[in-house]
Amino acid sequence: MPPPPTAALSSSSSLCLFPFSSYSSPKKTQLGFCPSFPFTRLINVTPTRRLMTCSAVSIEKETLISHRPHSFLRETDGLDDGSVRSRFLRMIMEVQDSVCGALEAVDGAGKFKEDAWTRPGGGGGISRVLQDGDVFEKAGVNISVVYGVMPPEAYRAAKANVTDQKPGPVPFFAAGISSVLHPKNPFAPTLHFNYRYFETDAPKDAPGAPRQWWFGGGTDLTPSYIFEEDVKHFHSIQKKACDKFDPSFYPRFKKWCDDYFYIKHRDERRGLGGIFFDDLNDNDQEMLLSFATECANSVVPAYVPIVEKRKNTPFTESHKAWQQLRRGRYIEFNLVYDRGTTFGLKTGGRIESILVSLPLTARWEYDHVSFLPSFSFFPSLQGKNIPIICK
Amino acid sequence: MPPPPTAALSSSSSLCLFPFSSYSSPKKTQLGFCPSFPFTRLINVTPTRRLMTCSAVSIEKETLISHRPHSFLRETDGLDDGSVRSRFLRMIMEVQDSVCGALEAVDGAGKFKEDAWTRPGGGGGISRVLQDGDVFEKAGVNISVVYGVMPPEAYRAAKANVTDQKPGPVPFFAAGISSVLHPKNPFAPTLHFNYRYFETDAPKDAPGAPRQWWFGGGTDLTPSYIFEEDVKHFHSIQKKACDKFDPSFYPRFKKWCDDYFYIKHRDERRGLGGIFFDDLNDNDQEMLLSFATECANSVVPAYVPIVEKRKNTPFTESHKAWQQLRRGRYIEFNLVYDRGTTFGLKTGGRIESILVSLPLTARWEYDHVSFLPSFSFFPSLQGKNIPIICK
Repeated sequence: MPPPPTAALSSSSSLCLFPFSSYSSPKKTQLGFCPSFPFTRLINVTPTRRLMTCSAVSIEKETLISHRPHSFLRETDGLDDGSVRSRFLRMIMEVQDSVCGALEAVDGAGKFKEDAWTRPGGGGGISRVLQDGDVFEKAGVNISVVYGVMPPEAYRAAKANVTDQKPGPVPFFAAGISSVLHPKNPFAPTLHFNYRYFETDAPKDAPGAPRQWWFGGGTDLTPSYIFEEDVKHFHSIQKKACDKFDPSFYPRFKKWCDDYFYIKHRDERRGLGGIFFDDLNDNDQEMLLSFATECANSVVPAYVPIVEKRKNTPFTESHKAWQQLRRGRYIEFNLVYDRGTTFGLKTGGRIESILVSLPLTARWEYDHVSFLPSFSFFPSLQGKNIPIICK
Repeated sequence: MPPPPTAALSSSSSLCLFPFSSYSSPKKTQLGFCPSFPFTRLINVTPTRRLMTCSAVSIEKETLISHRPHSFLRETDGLDDGSVRSRFLRMIMEVQDSVCGALEAVDGAGKFKEDAWTRPGGGGGISRVLQDGDVFEKAGVNISVVYGVMPPEAYRAAKANVTDQKPGPVPFFAAGISSVLHPKNPFAPTLHFNYRYFETDAPKDAPGAPRQWWFGGGTDLTPSYIFEEDVKHFHSIQKKACDKFDPSFYPRFKKWCDDYFYIKHRDERRGLGGIFFDDLNDNDQEMLLSFATECANSVVPAYVPIVEKRKNTPFTESHKAWQQLRRGRYIEFNLVYDRGTTFGLKTGGRIESILVSLPLTARWEYDHVSFLPSFSFFPSLQGKNIPIICK
């Protein structure tokens, strides 16, 4: 009487606008990817809370395809024309390949299942999920490209408009990679990363208005048991990637990460932090493309050595139970706070793509009380009820 | 390295106001218990969405006590004076005893752990949780009594005020019982029930203004596998309880239940329905007290025979996996939609009391596709991806 193993035949990502004011500059109105799944959700950064304008966004219905295409760009874009959008897309496709390859090598048994789709007017995506492998409980690594139109209210140019005309709808382009990796061994941490790039055209009836572009993303670690050497290794790679570009990046994006991945009702950080940024356009565009590339390419060296070291650590049922309680916290964050997830669920996104970020299994015990360690290597540890420390 | 089994020493419930407009009469502004945990959460019924006025509610901090008191009423109320509030409290205390006794008898091994508390100015509660028994994975049966003060904006008398004075803060009384029961066997269903009674005094500076009172509550069933005979039995008990009082009650409260326990992003009902009502004050007060008593006393005959019948049914790992997926749906509803839960989490309620409604364990698989049965015995089954039917 269990349900039959019918395969689903649709794979898509949805696109919605919603306000993201609390974790980006209040001065800008921009689009940004949500920091978690779904990876292609667009977010309208405005100071107006709870204004949902999803229906105003125009995106074509996706078509499932049997093989991944060479590119998801419109032909008018030039597929390999050296533009930032084409180079960013090439980069995330390569990162998807390299991350999935590295994870399959670590796992040894599990293979990624791929769903690819396109949209008639350009854009599409590739979802890859490895489930119930030898090492990974559930690992999703997804990329997507979206061509859409946002309402003029969502567009506010960084510079003043060159015309006095009321702007019309604003075409935009967005591309991103997003991933959540949940290993089985309770001593191996969960990883989340997400890098994305946006461009808007000028509003349709204000051709002289400035175009905009920006980058967003981050990589963060969520262990159930804290090994100080693992945390130091992970953060050192993030810092190294940031420091190559700007000494202010690591402290700034580390704090942004700590502030965002916070489970308010528990007064706990979701994990041990990492880096997180959004609306990044104050630096040279080429420099930021290189920075995003560096960050995305740092995922494997930051994470894989930790999983390799911990994947075969012996554990007991009580270690597994503690991991399952921490998994519950991950679910609480994603379902209660993560803006992309909660908004996606309420506005008709593809549920499987949104909730692939959830672990395979989780546990909630009544009145379970955890250690209150005094570990203060990183500010993200200064909450209560954080993971257990292993020396 | 698992966390130590330190016992928590606080037990409380919190009290907050928030708008409940979408599932109650838009003409009234009233207070109502949330339909799930936390059972003592007060809810401000206004047509204004998302207006949160929790901070305006005045409730004293609770004190843990070692033994349950004779009553949680203020002495000025008269502990057994025959008032509706004292009789309702007596009733829910008796129902807590009878339900917990019946569940322990069904379980055979598990015992309820009790936390009791009072507040200096009156009120308090008793939380009882049975975890990891032979039959029940997690079962919570909680009662509480609250004396508080609501802001005048939350008070709108059913009749016109007798004075033209702007009303001041409005003292109120609330008492309720709330419970979620998750059995281990995948063929035994989850049950939720919740009955509550409210009274407001006249506004402090408008002594002639009318007092208000109302009842709310419901009982609903959430199986992983549907046995038609179980569903018929469960609903027949609800119908019988309703029909004793008013033939319109069962169809009206059954629809209310179906409408409320709906997982929008899945287009699924949370379960197989039951009854649900709120703001009930259009009938004779004595009749409604008897009705609430009848409903609460119907929990054991409606539910226990089903659990007795299914608790030892042999099951496989795939049955258990399917139950765990359905548990995931329960969590999705409670964390994403249940107004009491989501508001409680965001406004500082006691987390353990709020989240005791979650099952001990749950599971999320990528792209799992379930049956789409054509079963239409009850309208609550007309969604997609509903539980599996067993004949």
